[in-house]
Amino acid sequence: MYEVEVKVPADLEAVRARLEELDATPVDDVAQEDTYYDAPHRSFPETDEALRIRTERAETGADEVRLTYKGPLVDDASKTREEVETAVASGEKIDTVLTKLGFEPAATVRKDRERFALEEYTITLDSVEDVGEYVEVETEVDDEADLESAREGAYDVLERLGRDPDEQVRTSYLGLLLADDA
Amino acid sequence: MYEVEVKVPADLEAVRARLEELDATPVDDVAQEDTYYDAPHRSFPETDEALRIRTERAETGADEVRLTYKGPLVDDASKTREEVETAVASGEKIDTVLTKLGFEPAATVRKDRERFALEEYTITLDSVEDVGEYVEVETEVDDEADLESAREGAYDVLERLGRDPDEQVRTSYLGLLLADDA
Repeated sequence: MYEVEVKVPADLEAVRARLEELDATPVDDVAQEDTYYDAPHRSFPETDEALRIRTERAETGADEVRLTYKGPLVDDASKTREEVETAVASGEKIDTVLTKLGFEPAATVRKDRERFALEEYTITLDSVEDVGEYVEVETEVDDEADLESAREGAYDVLERLGRDPDEQVRTSYLGLLLADDA
Repeated sequence: MYEVEVKVPADLEAVRARLEELDATPVDDVAQEDTYYDAPHRSFPETDEALRIRTERAETGADEVRLTYKGPLVDDASKTREEVETAVASGEKIDTVLTKLGFEPAATVRKDRERFALEEYTITLDSVEDVGEYVEVETEVDDEADLESAREGAYDVLERLGRDPDEQVRTSYLGLLLADDA
């Protein structure tokens, strides 16, 4: 499975109005707090890996916590990376386990995330603390051969939302946050 | 909180009969599989730490998985160690995360564990694969001053179960398993 994901800066208010005009389906609205860890025995920026605890709070109020490992790019063209994730019962406890093992919190990305569905695309409106507002259009395809047309489709969705695909930002929110700190 | 725990080898059939005579309350009966990991950046045997994934299957059949970090002894007299534990949704996924980070499964202890309650004591009948049969008597006290009398009480329970407290084994099942391998 391959993922296409295109992200551009956006005024979320304006995008929301367009989504309504396009009759997109609201999916959910969550607050996410992502803490990324440094390893004691490797430099994750050098190995292109990441270890993250994500705490997600939905409007219903219950926290969901997930531990995620992201491996280096396995396919540069499709930007595919291995991702292994499991839910954990306690964010505080898993943080303590990691810290005891020598892993250290490196940065925390906090955002409000509203999701919509439009045709085969998921549209995400992210308001990222200390970073800014972004709209992300993504979809998945089974065959690598379909990547290019899926990407064209994502660009098309962005245009219908009044955004310019040429403004695409490839840096992660973590990267943007750290660049901002520097 | 301080824990008193005394373990002796035992013929579980005979202990079970005594527990019935003493009118002990059956608590539960589970199968546990504990996998201990080696760290890529530390020798846990040297630092006296442990990292464990425990998968517990109750008679009802649902697996419970927990990730546990055990720190070194903080108090030699009471044998107290820091323990941090959280439930995780997938044993397979958390194993993959650990393995990707460079942790490696070192040994797996498998046992059937029957628990009974008798007064303020928990009595555990363990049948440990490749290690043997053991009975464990344990309780908790709030004050360090009460440790000695709680320990005497545990010895007394063992005697009522027809076991000799002098046969106490202080080595963990992991230690016994590894000693057996050597």
